[in-house]
Formats: sequence, C-alpha cells, structure tokens
Amino acid sequence: MSAPSGRRRLKVGLIGVGRLGRVYARDLASRIPETRLVAVADTNAAAATEVAAEWDVPAAYDSTTQLIDDPNVDAIVIVSPTHTHRDVVIEAAERRKPTFCEKPLALSLGECREMQAAVERSGTFFQMGFMRRFDPGYAAAKKQVEDGRIGRPVVFKSTSRDPFPPSLEYANPASSGGILVDMGIHDFDLARWFMGEVASVSAIGGVLAYPDFATVGDMDNAIASIVFADGRLGVVDLTRNGIYGYDIVTELLGTEGTVRVGYIQETPVTTMTRNNVAHDTVPYFMERFERAYTRQLQNFAQNVLSEREPPIVLRDGVEALRVALAAAQACRSGTSVRVSSVA
Amino acid sequence: MSAPSGRRRLKVGLIGVGRLGRVYARDLASRIPETRLVAVADTNAAAATEVAAEWDVPAAYDSTTQLIDDPNVDAIVIVSPTHTHRDVVIEAAERRKPTFCEKPLALSLGECREMQAAVERSGTFFQMGFMRRFDPGYAAAKKQVEDGRIGRPVVFKSTSRDPFPPSLEYANPASSGGILVDMGIHDFDLARWFMGEVASVSAIGGVLAYPDFATVGDMDNAIASIVFADGRLGVVDLTRNGIYGYDIVTELLGTEGTVRVGYIQETPVTTMTRNNVAHDTVPYFMERFERAYTRQLQNFAQNVLSEREPPIVLRDGVEALRVALAAAQACRSGTSVRVSSVA
Amino acid sequence: MSAPSGRRRLKVGLIGVGRLGRVYARDLASRIPETRLVAVADTNAAAATEVAAEWDVPAAYDSTTQLIDDPNVDAIVIVSPTHTHRDVVIEAAERRKPTFCEKPLALSLGECREMQAAVERSGTFFQMGFMRRFDPGYAAAKKQVEDGRIGRPVVFKSTSRDPFPPSLEYANPASSGGILVDMGIHDFDLARWFMGEVASVSAIGGVLAYPDFATVGDMDNAIASIVFADGRLGVVDLTRNGIYGYDIVTELLGTEGTVRVGYIQETPVTTMTRNNVAHDTVPYFMERFERAYTRQLQNFAQNVLSEREPPIVLRDGVEALRVALAAAQACRSGTSVRVSSVA
Amino acid sequence: MSAPSGRRRLKVGLIGVGRLGRVYARDLASRIPETRLVAVADTNAAAATEVAAEWDVPAAYDSTTQLIDDPNVDAIVIVSPTHTHRDVVIEAAERRKPTFCEKPLALSLGECREMQAAVERSGTFFQMGFMRRFDPGYAAAKKQVEDGRIGRPVVFKSTSRDPFPPSLEYANPASSGGILVDMGIHDFDLARWFMGEVASVSAIGGVLAYPDFATVGDMDNAIASIVFADGRLGVVDLTRNGIYGYDIVTELLGTEGTVRVGYIQETPVTTMTRNNVAHDTVPYFMERFERAYTRQLQNFAQNVLSEREPPIVLRDGVEALRVALAAAQACRSGTSVRVSSVA
Repeated sequence: MSAPSGRRRLKVGLIGVGRLGRVYARDLASRIPETRLVAVADTNAAAATEVAAEWDVPAAYDSTTQLIDDPNVDAIVIVSPTHTHRDVVIEAAERRKPTFCEKPLALSLGECREMQAAVERSGTFFQMGFMRRFDPGYAAAKKQVEDGRIGRPVVFKSTSRDPFPPSLEYANPASSGGILVDMGIHDFDLARWFMGEVASVSAIGGVLAYPDFATVGDMDNAIASIVFADGRLGVVDLTRNGIYGYDIVTELLGTEGTVRVGYIQETPVTTMTRNNVAHDTVPYFMERFERAYTRQLQNFAQNVLSEREPPIVLRDGVEALRVALAAAQACRSGTSVRVSSVA
Repeated sequence: MSAPSGRRRLKVGLIGVGRLGRVYARDLASRIPETRLVAVADTNAAAATEVAAEWDVPAAYDSTTQLIDDPNVDAIVIVSPTHTHRDVVIEAAERRKPTFCEKPLALSLGECREMQAAVERSGTFFQMGFMRRFDPGYAAAKKQVEDGRIGRPVVFKSTSRDPFPPSLEYANPASSGGILVDMGIHDFDLARWFMGEVASVSAIGGVLAYPDFATVGDMDNAIASIVFADGRLGVVDLTRNGIYGYDIVTELLGTEGTVRVGYIQETPVTTMTRNNVAHDTVPYFMERFERAYTRQLQNFAQNVLSEREPPIVLRDGVEALRVALAAAQACRSGTSVRVSSVA
Repeated sequence: MSAPSGRRRLKVGLIGVGRLGRVYARDLASRIPETRLVAVADTNAAAATEVAAEWDVPAAYDSTTQLIDDPNVDAIVIVSPTHTHRDVVIEAAERRKPTFCEKPLALSLGECREMQAAVERSGTFFQMGFMRRFDPGYAAAKKQVEDGRIGRPVVFKSTSRDPFPPSLEYANPASSGGILVDMGIHDFDLARWFMGEVASVSAIGGVLAYPDFATVGDMDNAIASIVFADGRLGVVDLTRNGIYGYDIVTELLGTEGTVRVGYIQETPVTTMTRNNVAHDTVPYFMERFERAYTRQLQNFAQNVLSEREPPIVLRDGVEALRVALAAAQACRSGTSVRVSSVA
Repeated sequence: MSAPSGRRRLKVGLIGVGRLGRVYARDLASRIPETRLVAVADTNAAAATEVAAEWDVPAAYDSTTQLIDDPNVDAIVIVSPTHTHRDVVIEAAERRKPTFCEKPLALSLGECREMQAAVERSGTFFQMGFMRRFDPGYAAAKKQVEDGRIGRPVVFKSTSRDPFPPSLEYANPASSGGILVDMGIHDFDLARWFMGEVASVSAIGGVLAYPDFATVGDMDNAIASIVFADGRLGVVDLTRNGIYGYDIVTELLGTEGTVRVGYIQETPVTTMTRNNVAHDTVPYFMERFERAYTRQLQNFAQNVLSEREPPIVLRDGVEALRVALAAAQACRSGTSVRVSSVA
C-alpha cells in the first residue's frame, strides 16, 4: 500500500535513539503527517534495530555515515550526544542533506565555527532545535509581546527547575557543559528570542543540595544576571533541586504590562481536605514539552518541503552557547563578562 | 476629652453580645468613625458589663427595654437570638428609634407580618442585615452585572459550605429553622438581589455526614432548585460538611459571560513538596466576611445620619425567609412549591 | 514491510467519519500501537474514501454491512449518528465482532433493549463509549475517591458548559434527545460511575439565551437534582451559553474532603495589564478531551486483544440514558420522577 | 469615662502624620487594644492638630522634643521622614522612652552608628520596623521553613513591584537612597531574616521605563544577586513599572520543597468572557500590608508592656541598609561588593 496521493512526505533519517530519540522516532513515524521515518542510526545497533521494528522503519544502521549516505534519506534529524554533533552536521552538510540538530549545538565555540563554516559553504538547510519556542505557551507569549500587549518588554526573567538531579556522569561539565550550559541554554535562547543580543552576563552558583556534584565540578544551583545590548535587564535562575516537580517559568516585564508563561499542575484535579487544598505537579520535561517537540519537528519538515527559511538558525545555537559560556566564566571569575569576549 | 468638633456620630445601643455581638461592639466602638457605642444590653448581665468595660461603653443593661428607652441611645442594632427579634423590633419602632436587625428577621412569616406592621405604622427607619451584600467581592460582582459585563444573567448558582457542623442544640429546626433557612437564607437573599423574585422552588436533602442530625430533625446537606418569576433558573447547594474550610461561592451565568465570587485560600502562601502544591483554606465565616460586617454597620450609620433610604429593607428579610420556608416545605413534600403560596 | 514481529494489532473497522470519526481514524491509524485501521465506512462514500487515503486504509465502504462482513475486520468502532446505532450494533453482534459504540447508545430505551438482547444472545464483546472516564483528571479523581481521600462522597456536582449553541437542526430533540440527553448523559454517566444508581431526578430548564431553541422544542439551560438509591444527593447543571469557553467541572463532596476535576485555561500564559490579570480558556471539547478519546480506544483494543472485560458495558449506556430521559420527563412535568419508572 | 480596669494600655506619642503616619494614628487610637494615642507631633502643625482631633488625641505638637518630653507619653513611634530619624531616636533614647522606628533606619551607616551608640548607652527598648515580617503570609512561610517543611532553604528569591513610579522628588537618591535602598531594603531584610547574613552582592539596573528618572540619578529597575555568608544564593528584582498592580513575591527554594508568599488578586471575583478569564490586582502597599502594619505596632506595644525583647532590633535596620548600600555600590561599579566592606 502506498502513501496517499497528493501528500508529500519528507523521508527522514534519525540519528540517535536514546530517551529523546525514541520520542522523535514516534513523532516522525506516526504523529507528523509530513514525515516518514525511513532510517534510524545509533552506535547501539540493538537499539536502532528495536526502534526500527517498533515503527516499521525500513533501515537501521549503527553508523551515521551509512544513514546519511542512504539514498532513501532526504533529511537528517540529529539527537545523538552533543559531542557527536560536529561530525554529523559537517558530514550532512557535505552531502547537502537538510538537517535538524537538537540543542546544544556543541560544547565549544571552536566546534561551532567548524559546523557553521561547513553549513555556509554548502548552503545546506539547517534548523537548530530549541523546542520551547514551539510550545503553545511560549508561542502565544511571543505573539502577545509582538502585538504590544505589554508595551516594551524591559526585564526578562526565566526560571528552570529540574525535579531531581541528573547522574554525576551526566552532570560532568566535560560532557554537559555544566548547569549554566546544560540547563541554562534554553533560558539564554529565550532571552535572545524575546529581547535580542546579550551584552554582558554575571553569575553566581554553588553546590547547595547535592554535595556529590562538587566531585565532578558542577553546581546544582546558579543565577545569572543579564544586561542586553540596549541596556535592558534579565535574570535566569536554575536549580537541580526543584523537588516538587518540573517547573519552567518565563516572565516579560514591560512598560504596559507583564506576560508570564508556565504552569506546574499536571492533572486537573484539586483535592481539598482539612485546611488544605492541593494538586499535583508536572513530573518532568516530556510531560511539559511533548507537544513542543512534535511541533518543532513538524515545522522542520514543513520548512524543508516548502523551501522556507528555518525559524531558528545555526547562529542561534552558537549565540545561546556563547551566553552560557560567558555565564559559566563569570561564575568562576566573580566578575561580569562581556559576551563578545568569549570566543 | 470630647468628640472631634464637626464630626457627627450616631449614638448606638447594641442588643445582644454573643459571639457576633462582640464583633459588632468592637466595630461600633472603634472601627466605624460614624458611630459611638453608648449602651449594650444582654439578658446575660455579666456579658453586657464585660463588653461595656472592654469598649468604654457608658451603659450596660440586662433589659432591652431599658436600652431602647435610654435617651442617650439614638439608634438600635439588634444581634440577639432570632426568636427575640419580633419584640425588640416592635418596641424600637414604637419608640421611633432607627433600627438595624441581623438576619434572619424571624422564623415565621406571622412574626414578620407583625414586625412589618409596626415598622410601617411608625415610619421608623429599618435596615435589614445581609452582610454578604457588603462584601467587596459581592459588591464588585453586582456592579459588573449591572454594568452589563456578562450580558443578561440567566442562571444563578450559589454554594455555602460550613467547615464543621453546629451543635445539635443550634441545628434544631425549632430555633435555627433548619439548614435551608439557617444557611440558605443568605443564598436566597443573594438570589433575589441578583435576579429578582422567586416563583417556585424545589429541594432535596438528607442526613449524609452527621447521623445525629436526624435526632433533631435537621439535615446536613440540601440542594434547592429555583425558578425565578421571569423563568430564569437558579440552584443553591448547602452543606455542613465542608471539612476543608469555609467556602462560599456564587456564580452568575450570563448571555455574554460569567462572573464568580469566592475564594478558599486564607494565607498567601503556597507550599510545594514532592509532586504536591498546597495552600490553606478560610477557617470560618468571620475570616471571610469580617470586612462585610463592618461595612454593613457603617452603611447603616451613614444612612441614618444622612437620612438616606436603607439599601436592604424589612421586606427583603421577609421574602428571603419566604423562599427558604418554601424550600424547606418542598424538601419535605418532594414537590415544587410556589413561593407565593407560603404564608 | 510488515508489522513488527511480536506486536499484535487489532484490525479495526471504523463506522462513521464525521467530525469525531476523523479523530478516531487518526487515533486508530497512527496513535494507538495496538490497532490497525483496516476499513472505514460512511454513507458519504467520498468522505470514506478521503479518510482511507489520508491514513493508508486498505478498504473504504459506503455500507456498514460491507465493513462488518469484511473478513480483514476483527473489531468494529461505531461513531456514526445515534439513530444508526441500533442496526449496526445488532448486525455486529450477529457477526460476533467485538464492538465499541460511542455514546449515546440510542435515543429510546426500546432500541436499547433490542441492542442489549442481541449482544447478550451472541455473547459478543461490547464496550460502551463514555470518554470522560478515560480523562487523566477524571481517572485520578476516581482513584482518589476509591483510595478514601475524601471519606465517603455524599454529594455529586457536575457542570457542563458549551461555549456556543449547536445548530437548531442538531439541537432538535428528535435527533439529539434535547439538552438533558445530549449534554447531560455524560454527567449522568459520571454520577453513576462515582455514586451508583439513581433513584429519582427532578429538573428545571428553559430557553434563556437563544430564543430560536424554542422553535425546535429544546432548552438552552437545565438543572437536574438527583437522589441516589441510598439517599445521597447530586446536581447537574447544563448550559449552551458557556460563552467564555468549554467548561466541564465535576465535584465530589465527601465526609472527609472534596475532590474537584476541571480546568478552563488552555495556554499556560498569564497576561497582566493595568489592574487586570487574564488568561485564555479551553475552546471546545476536543481540546479538553483529546487524550481521553485516544485512551478510550486504546483501552478497547487492549481489552479485546487480552480478552478482558470491558470497563463500561452496554447497561451503562442504557442506565445513563434512563436517568437522562427521567430528567427530561421531570422537567416537562415539574415533578420528581423515579428513574425505574422510565421504560 | 475611664479605661477598662485590668487592661494596661501603652500611652504612645506618634511622630509624623504623613500618609503612613495617619494609618499609624488610626491603629494606635482605635485598632490596637494595648495602646492609647496620647500625643502626635509633626512639623506641619495643622496636620498634627487635624489628626489629634480625628482620634481624640489630647496633645498635638509641632516639635518632636515637646512630644518626647510630654510626661503623659510612655513610648514613641517614629514615622517621620528618614532624614529625621537620627535626631529623634537619639533624643528618645536619652529620655529612655521605648521607641519604634519605621524603616529605613537612616540613609547612611554613619547616622546608624550614632543611633546605635545612643540606644546601647541608654539601654532603651528599641524596635525596628519591617512590617513584612508581621504579614500573616510571611509569618506563616517563616514558620513552615522553621518547621522543616522545605528542608534546608538554599535559594532566596524576592520580587517587589510598584504599580507606578514615585515622584521624581521622592525618587531622588539623596532622600530615598535610590531604588535599591528605598524598595530593596524590605527584600534585603527578608533575605537576612530567612537566610542569615549576606557576604556579597552584585547588581544591575537601569532607567528603562521612565526616562525622567535619569534626571535625578535613580533607576526604575534593578536586579541584585546575593551570596550569603555560608555560600547559599539569592536574587532580588525590583521595578517601578509593575503597571498591573502592587506585586510582592518571595520564594524560598529548599532541599525538600519550596514555599512562596504573595498574591496579586484583590477582590475575590473572577470574570469570564469570550475566551478570557480575568481578575483584578492589588492596588498598592496599604491594601497588601494593612494588617501587617497593625500587627507590627501591636507587637511593639505588647513587647514594651510585657518587657519582652524586640523581635527586630536596631542592628537589623543597620544590616539591611548595609546590604542595600552594597548593592547600590555594586550596581555603580559593575563588580561584586563584599557587604562587610561597606562602612
């Protein structure tokens, strides 16, 4: 049986089938009308085979090169570990295959520059992944700001709280970049999206809840203060000990009003007992941003099929990383750091 | 030391210094600039003396007649038990002393008629007490409805929940009128205030949480359905087992929108623990309506001093009672009862 | 390419591809791992063909008999108009094909009896559709009640509000059953699910917002009071003029607490402007219950595949209808109606 | 007529009858059972006389010395402009009259030292005013933290938003200390109350909404990052353009949970119109903290009458000011400032 006539589907190859990769596989295979998942690749061959079987995917590889070279693959979605992004992006660019790359782009600006050079040289379509921009809440807030509902936004505030700490292996700044990169990059991307470029950043942080984090050189809490290029202000606070649930809140304070995005209630049930009114919380990021992930991939496919420009470009990945690295440096040095000085 | 020149104060005599009477004493003596509390009366002479001492009141009586006859008393506030209202109101009317009477006016329409006759005959100023109308929330909702914010209100819904049951002695319908009178009269007054006269009412009820209530002939839960004179609809539900807190909610559903009054959070503190977000509740009626009680007495004093008409008249007390009695009768008979048939 | 080995999928034939039918098609074809959509049928042949093309369905029919007789079809999902349910259910039962039927089962108890007889005679698996029971909120509330969180529930309250009126054609009680059946059946099913059988019901209603409704004999607002078989109480209020949004709220008041299900905010955005804090609302039923519909069909497939009993049986469809019909009769007669007297 | 036998009242002299002073006069004269307002003083003699007349106060002065020397005055409450605090506190200390002083204690640490020396030398009772600590919300949050509800608090967050800017005359840092002192001192006091001493602070700020503020050298927005002495973290953000209402929120993020204090809804009315749910906001600080002001003065009187230690001492006023001055200095210099270096 063939695809319905008249509907064009983008034949996607997916690189990386870890926790998030499996969600992407499901979306590409079954939830996004504009895509067909035609290949998966993972260095864990068994995982690739398993996911392929689950979603009727014709090809499973243990090599990214094989997937990129598969003539049936029209576009690449990269959700493999960050340290692999550089090679895959460059290879996909050389084969001129439209690419979506999950955040963060890389852990060093040097790698970013190489990727940027390859993508620009080849002129390949490249879309950067920052799923919050596709969350219906964030999208609605952006529209309200653009519509002038709050006048001119002058202060940006964003809070990200994880309900439990990652493993020490994951938290290790050598692979995660540390809390200000790993968690903060989402908030720094939002900062740029809502307010524009960041001029300087200062930060404080510490190991306050999970002493083991000190052994790998990461922190479990951090606060970064932002001065934007035009003098407006921002603040981002991050924690690994959200405890009560996954809680992401962003607020734009404007000259005529304020808009806030975020919620912490998962199930619409309120329980009232003696002098107590209670509800549950959002367990973790997938419960909060599932729709955003789906919409993001759908947007990628639509852009490629319609030859539209990507709404989030490689440079957005670079600049969000630059702010995060500046914050990390500011936290170590105890001084404000000009973002442009980080290279 | 004398009262400030230029400020006229209404010299009030207070009848009844039980739980609510003591709140009225405090308000009349210290919180309402337009009043001076010059006498208190209670059949419990010790209580009268104690309250007089607490608030520097020059006269304390154990007889309502003495208080009404005190030439220093310009106006009467009645908050004694319901079965005493008839005699006191008639006596005050005969002395032509402006009177405020706490709800319910009486427990029988026969008594109401006698009071009404006395008040009309003498032409004395009489203000009925229904404090919810003076709550800032209810007042704001009334204004929104009058301003047309919700179009034409077509359905009236009101819920009253007590956090714990009264004593059996109190609950006894012989003195309280039963749940549909004792609790419901507030909601029935709101129904008339927001929507106009009630044509018919039906009701169901039962002893569902506190089996002892059956021994005195009262119920602990009841629901009354209302058809207004013009065909619009209403529903009132009452419970003695609110358990979690004191919860009063009223909603007007209109052709262009809905307005809802009510809250159950007392302290502005939210506590978030593992998968749980919680806050406290409103303990009881005084925490919810303290300001309304004060504003109501202040309004009474201002009306008397300025010779303005009372916003709530004796007839409002009669008609709210008539609806409540119709509901009680409907609950017993299992049929809808025309309010006008209750005499 | 074949289905993944090891995963059994139920091959489903879908009858009816109207508004809701198309959602079911999408779910059966792409969102439910346990199903495969192998046939669709609709008297509108073009619609059937279109849906089949959209979801790669091998067979499209304009006759329900053809679909039921298709040997590739293992199970039937019925979402065609209510008046067609009787014939399709009986036919599917005679072919012994497991059947899911969307609510309401029928508009008359006579039809219900015929369907019940056919299903019982054949012993065919039959699952009744009441999607609210599969909503994560309602499911969580049910669990809390069963876990004793609120003690014994003694009062059931449920509110259903549509944001705009249906067409007069749709509203016509001849096809919809009228507001107490069409809207109320969901609430009456919840009443039975949470509290058990209903003994009697009374109701009031009227044409208050949309005068045209009178021309077809329907009402736009109604309130039904319920006495359960064991004396506990309930109230259901329904409106076509929710205006602000789609709002479904159910509350169980218990001897130890209260649980409430419902929400009216769609996007997690709060906008604060001069003396105003505002958010949006839930547009309509699909935004509110999309997940519940999917979970319900998935549950059906799992039950058939695992030979488990259905959680909602044909009798649930009959009894919810009987309560709704009793309410409609009570509203016309102005008296309380014993549910068992409605046949 | 005499005060009730058995009740001791503290005879208070009030210095300053501006906006806040008049509220204090009302509270001392009528709302606090433990006090009697026996004298008022203000350089504006007419205002003093007017307030005295309003509340039956026997003495009105245009000189603070006269009030302090009045033998009828047992205790002093200071709510005059900040620059007058030094002289009045020293004079009251020399006369050994128990003193309550509204925040901020002074605008320079030099003045603070002189006041501290005078108070310590004389051993006079001195209570510092920070009303938020007496707000039922903040008090409940403090208790929850002390009870271990959130484990160990590790991050302190506090937001203060004024709904409109003060006059330029008021905002002038020469008299107000600037936004980080004038607004921030409340948050810095809360920081010390909940978390202990502050080691260092950095800050950013700007003129973002009201360009005129630049003409007097103040900012309209500022954000301060705090490192406490034990390494824990904090952040305070302040704005003059709250616009939507007066909004004060404080949050303690702990190792086992989070507690948040604050609300922005004034009237318990929710209005639902087409796709919009809205409520009002808290107009300004008096609506938010009226009860806290009253409780604070009552606490002062009870402490003096019962010879209890003050819960907030002069040093609290000094140290909150020191943090605020450190923040202001950090904002000017762009570097982190050690609080102990500010003298």
